[in-house]
Amino acid sequence: MNQVEVCLTPELIHQHDLSGKIAVVVDIFRATSCMVTGMAHGVQSIHPVATVEECLQLGAKGMVTAGERGGIKVEGFTIGNSPYEYMREEFQKQSIAVTTTNGTRTILASEGAKEIIIGAFLNLSAVARHIQQKNSDVLIHCAGWKGTVNIEDTLYAGALIAELSGTHAHTGDAALLAHELFRANQTDLMKIANNSAHAARLAGFGVAKDLELCMQQSKFDVVPIYENGEITSLTQK
Amino acid sequence: MNQVEVCLTPELIHQHDLSGKIAVVVDIFRATSCMVTGMAHGVQSIHPVATVEECLQLGAKGMVTAGERGGIKVEGFTIGNSPYEYMREEFQKQSIAVTTTNGTRTILASEGAKEIIIGAFLNLSAVARHIQQKNSDVLIHCAGWKGTVNIEDTLYAGALIAELSGTHAHTGDAALLAHELFRANQTDLMKIANNSAHAARLAGFGVAKDLELCMQQSKFDVVPIYENGEITSLTQK
Repeated sequence: MNQVEVCLTPELIHQHDLSGKIAVVVDIFRATSCMVTGMAHGVQSIHPVATVEECLQLGAKGMVTAGERGGIKVEGFTIGNSPYEYMREEFQKQSIAVTTTNGTRTILASEGAKEIIIGAFLNLSAVARHIQQKNSDVLIHCAGWKGTVNIEDTLYAGALIAELSGTHAHTGDAALLAHELFRANQTDLMKIANNSAHAARLAGFGVAKDLELCMQQSKFDVVPIYENGEITSLTQK
Repeated sequence: MNQVEVCLTPELIHQHDLSGKIAVVVDIFRATSCMVTGMAHGVQSIHPVATVEECLQLGAKGMVTAGERGGIKVEGFTIGNSPYEYMREEFQKQSIAVTTTNGTRTILASEGAKEIIIGAFLNLSAVARHIQQKNSDVLIHCAGWKGTVNIEDTLYAGALIAELSGTHAHTGDAALLAHELFRANQTDLMKIANNSAHAARLAGFGVAKDLELCMQQSKFDVVPIYENGEITSLTQK
């Protein structure tokens, strides 16, 4: 059997060997959920950057600009951080530059893997199928929040482990922990996600609809891949 | 209500503010379980050190020497790393120097807390009662294994959170994760502990009896405290 391991935050990535593995980067609330949604709605490419400045520079080159700070769309940006905004018809075949601190950090810290795939509940099955077709070991790399472990990304890790259970054995206690968390909560993922620190931080920003979308499984059949600074969809290739 | 938070490995301790809090250090397999057992059996003090050399130096000063490397007692040491060895009558009122890499590291990384308490399943209730008497916020500091998260220490964190639920609210997703893991497995802690990476590493060393003892709850009524390089029992003071 192939192996699946879990890194609970990018601060612990030095404990893992990425070489020869597919890295699945996940930041459920809301960066990778947005990316997957965009790709499923015809966006050409997404360019994750760490700062507002970098994002504005890409905006000046014609890209759509996306991102939020403190729960509010950045001034001068086209859109914020809601996956619903990524569904807009006018963004088809466009490129989107997005600021995401946790997400960008995690993507960059995944360099060295043979592929960097963007995962979310929204494309759970598509990512699992891709991994199984590649017959590869996997590392699920949770973005967490400011270096801390978070519930929603750990839940996703457990869900992907469950999805891969026919072909991949989980290895290490972080993977066991994630799998147990998912198994204990799979009948109502939203309930525990609502108890997370992130949901508490976002309360009051009217994003309940966003969070519900982010917890929906296998709604979109896309596998976004990060290469050379941009995310494109494998299914478009 | 007071707060209880969880640090899943000493590599993430910089994300926490220890000041004004009681730190509970836990290394279930087997360092803190041994310490609690020794204290419950009349050992005067325990001196945790990182290296074999430091331990031998304290041995030359008359202390009992304890510890293992790779699952086997260190050559020249009095005892290894089994909690049963800490029950010996001849160690009453003696001092024990013990090498423990994960445990020592976690204790030293807890400096800055107002108290550093040694926790294990074996003294679960005693530690909870002490914390409630002190009316203090708590950080549960899991030793993990070589900087990685482990199941048994995370389970303990969840158990202590449950024990403190009348007086302490858990804060942060690591605490929520630990609490969920404990709740989902509380009817058979040994089962998931046996699936842990640590149990797999120890298989073949004939330590099943040790691991079973380490998972027993509230067997001993002691609260060991670390101060000035040594662990003594609060109940002896």
